[in-house]
Amino acid sequence: MTAAYQELERRFAHLAALDKAQELLHWDRETIMPSGGAVARGEQLAALGLVVHEKMVEPGLSDLLDEAEQRALQDPWQAANLALMRREWRHANALDADLVEAFSRATSKAVESWLEARPAADFAGFLPAFREVVCLTREIAQAKAEAFGVKPYDALLERFEPSITGDEIDALFGRLAEVLPGLRDRILEQQASRPEPRLPDGPFPAERQKALGERLMTLAGFDTNRGRLDVSAHPFTAGAPGDIRITTRFDEADFTSSVMAVMHETGHGLYEQGLPQDWQFQPVGSAANMTVHESQSLLIEMQASRTPEFLSHAAPLMREVLGGEGETWQAENLHRLAIHVAPGFIRVDADEVHYPLHIMLRTRMERDLISGDLDPADVPEVWNAGMAELVGITPDHDGLGCLQDIHWASGLFGYFPTYSLGALAAAQLFCAAREQVPEIMQGLASGNFSPLLEWLRENVHAKGALLSTQELLTQATGAPLATEAFEAHLQQRYLD
Amino acid sequence: MTAAYQELERRFAHLAALDKAQELLHWDRETIMPSGGAVARGEQLAALGLVVHEKMVEPGLSDLLDEAEQRALQDPWQAANLALMRREWRHANALDADLVEAFSRATSKAVESWLEARPAADFAGFLPAFREVVCLTREIAQAKAEAFGVKPYDALLERFEPSITGDEIDALFGRLAEVLPGLRDRILEQQASRPEPRLPDGPFPAERQKALGERLMTLAGFDTNRGRLDVSAHPFTAGAPGDIRITTRFDEADFTSSVMAVMHETGHGLYEQGLPQDWQFQPVGSAANMTVHESQSLLIEMQASRTPEFLSHAAPLMREVLGGEGETWQAENLHRLAIHVAPGFIRVDADEVHYPLHIMLRTRMERDLISGDLDPADVPEVWNAGMAELVGITPDHDGLGCLQDIHWASGLFGYFPTYSLGALAAAQLFCAAREQVPEIMQGLASGNFSPLLEWLRENVHAKGALLSTQELLTQATGAPLATEAFEAHLQQRYLD
Repeated sequence: MTAAYQELERRFAHLAALDKAQELLHWDRETIMPSGGAVARGEQLAALGLVVHEKMVEPGLSDLLDEAEQRALQDPWQAANLALMRREWRHANALDADLVEAFSRATSKAVESWLEARPAADFAGFLPAFREVVCLTREIAQAKAEAFGVKPYDALLERFEPSITGDEIDALFGRLAEVLPGLRDRILEQQASRPEPRLPDGPFPAERQKALGERLMTLAGFDTNRGRLDVSAHPFTAGAPGDIRITTRFDEADFTSSVMAVMHETGHGLYEQGLPQDWQFQPVGSAANMTVHESQSLLIEMQASRTPEFLSHAAPLMREVLGGEGETWQAENLHRLAIHVAPGFIRVDADEVHYPLHIMLRTRMERDLISGDLDPADVPEVWNAGMAELVGITPDHDGLGCLQDIHWASGLFGYFPTYSLGALAAAQLFCAAREQVPEIMQGLASGNFSPLLEWLRENVHAKGALLSTQELLTQATGAPLATEAFEAHLQQRYLD
Repeated sequence: MTAAYQELERRFAHLAALDKAQELLHWDRETIMPSGGAVARGEQLAALGLVVHEKMVEPGLSDLLDEAEQRALQDPWQAANLALMRREWRHANALDADLVEAFSRATSKAVESWLEARPAADFAGFLPAFREVVCLTREIAQAKAEAFGVKPYDALLERFEPSITGDEIDALFGRLAEVLPGLRDRILEQQASRPEPRLPDGPFPAERQKALGERLMTLAGFDTNRGRLDVSAHPFTAGAPGDIRITTRFDEADFTSSVMAVMHETGHGLYEQGLPQDWQFQPVGSAANMTVHESQSLLIEMQASRTPEFLSHAAPLMREVLGGEGETWQAENLHRLAIHVAPGFIRVDADEVHYPLHIMLRTRMERDLISGDLDPADVPEVWNAGMAELVGITPDHDGLGCLQDIHWASGLFGYFPTYSLGALAAAQLFCAAREQVPEIMQGLASGNFSPLLEWLRENVHAKGALLSTQELLTQATGAPLATEAFEAHLQQRYLD
């Protein structure tokens, strides 16, 4: 280990602390900040962002990286850490300060515009601000493509999933596009032949739902001395080592949505709580990327918690905590509710069969937006045609269509695919885990997540960002990311 | 206005944002952070502290200040702002980086040691860490004395109260030392001739007490769209413009302590919410100093809320929200409870008659610690003798004596006097307000704080840090800080 490398560790720990301070300020804004705090909080976040950027572009840091890279590091963790430092440096230094500022201003404006346009289904009102974001994102993609030596869309993807290219995603999603529609039709047909699941009668007071959420997350292994559960408009996970914060929202008429949101965020939270302690505050000690992160939330929510095994344990617990009575509380009914499939317009409400179809639409549209093949003005038309083709339904208005997500307004291009890559990875990991540790399903049936969690800790969480998605999957499951396990999962859950 | 001054405003707004980010991280730590977050939070706070320090000592800032000071600013707010910038710069630049770091390490160690020593009443265990803090504080006082051209203790005081010297405090406290003991004896005698007040029977569930606190703070004018109430071990106020957070703690056996803590922090909060909007994020738009801050909390708590007028309105409200029954809920009993006087060992539990005696002891001891006239090893002996002399009682052990406060362990010297300066200022301001606006007391009797709040907004809050304590008091009350109003207040409340 060289002095330069050591100094880099010190500097990146400092940067990580500033990043995590920002994350807490974001968390606070989404959960408990009074409305009057918006302006001051904006100033705080901007000031912190500027400080981090200044520190990433100062010449001394570049010199240290150059020097540290002269000598190969023996320790694979150190070597990976150094590579990740360089990667972060590249992202920060690829762009002129002017472009960064213009982008920040354009996305703020577009989010503001989107907040008005969505409820009004007013795409024309959103278009000017949206066009500006797309235009600047193309510039950013071009600049980063040069810095990373990859294609423009891949350069955007790199931030969220560095080991899988746009072409590889095309191949995976192409296979899904072949099999999913037929599979979906067979599932809907078979589902129609069974009795409809029935939602237990509410209302379910928020504080009882919160108590239930806390019971379930603790059951799954979330350590509440090192994290907490709160409420926000959209569930998310944030925090720092030893202090992982997950959120949910409560629908007093339907507790199942908050239960599954809690299990989803618990999956994210377990990953964060299981990251390697020895490397905390270093890039290599952080989560690997968004594919792996999403695989962990979907593994806990979709793969583990929507099983008859887990629900046989959870159903009486839910009934007890929520004070329910009657037949709708039987595990079998709750299971059918948890795996109910139905086409819909809204991605975040989609079941796991339809979800990838929503993602495929967005992925192909954002690639075309970046390449210039799709003009921002044509987004509603292309969206609606894509929905008809992929999901078989056409939204009545853009509020249910191309205006539903905040991602593009806020400048997040290259993020959507990781939701479905995560779903594939979740299926592949869960399948391997069950083969390697037969006690996992028995465990779930008695509310014991330990066999599963131990496997995840060892094969995923403890790896931090040491491995790429492909390396991690190959080591844990014997193969790189593919669609087979996901297809088999759908077949087994819905058709066998 | 010069370009240099404008650039200074930009830089100090950026620094204020970083400061407020730190404050939120502190608030979160004291209120809701899970225990596992301590290490990461420590890193975040240290990283932010370092960034702020770096920005305060960079040569460019010094050049800008020099340049801006060449030309007199016509606008008194700008002129005051520039002077405050220079003052902040002086505090940051008076000390070598080595000394700052050594002090930070020594106080962390001393606080840790104090946390163990206090419950064990183990002064000998605390002494080594304490000695180190005193030794470094002497160095700091010396360095700042040179930078500010004042005596060493005054240089420490400067941070919390810049317009009153140690000698002036001696004169004020000397007068209190003359009159308070006799006054206290007469009050105790008179109190003994009346029936003892009785605490209503609990328990009082925390959520009801919280609801009561929210009712009362809103009554007093606290805007809950621009702030909130939470729970912490020790009540405090923090936050940023538009987002002022006050805290309290709940004793389920005694709701009166939390009610008065809420009113106290509400006083701080109203001040923060009333600071001049046009100058938010600038030094001159911040609170003037700790004397004025404490005057605002004590004015709302001690001067306004412990009156028969306010309690005649609040008593039925308290009974209703807490679901109480019986004679103990009568306003007269609750008033006698609120102004009950009794000697005790613990400063934070002291009534307003005894409180200054606790402060006088600490003030004279910390001055002697800084001058070198008092050796840290002799603190327990001097403390106990001082308690006997001033309060008339001697603690059984140091946990009830010199180990009770965290201030010295954490390096806060020069802070204690502002508690009692604030009490004097509160009495003086309240007296002037009542003379100028006769409707104030009628307002309190009907739960209407508006006449009082309007006066405070105009005469105190809206001034920000434009005026020194002495200027502010002279403008608002016609005279600089003195003991008369406080003495008259005690006479009127307890003896007339």
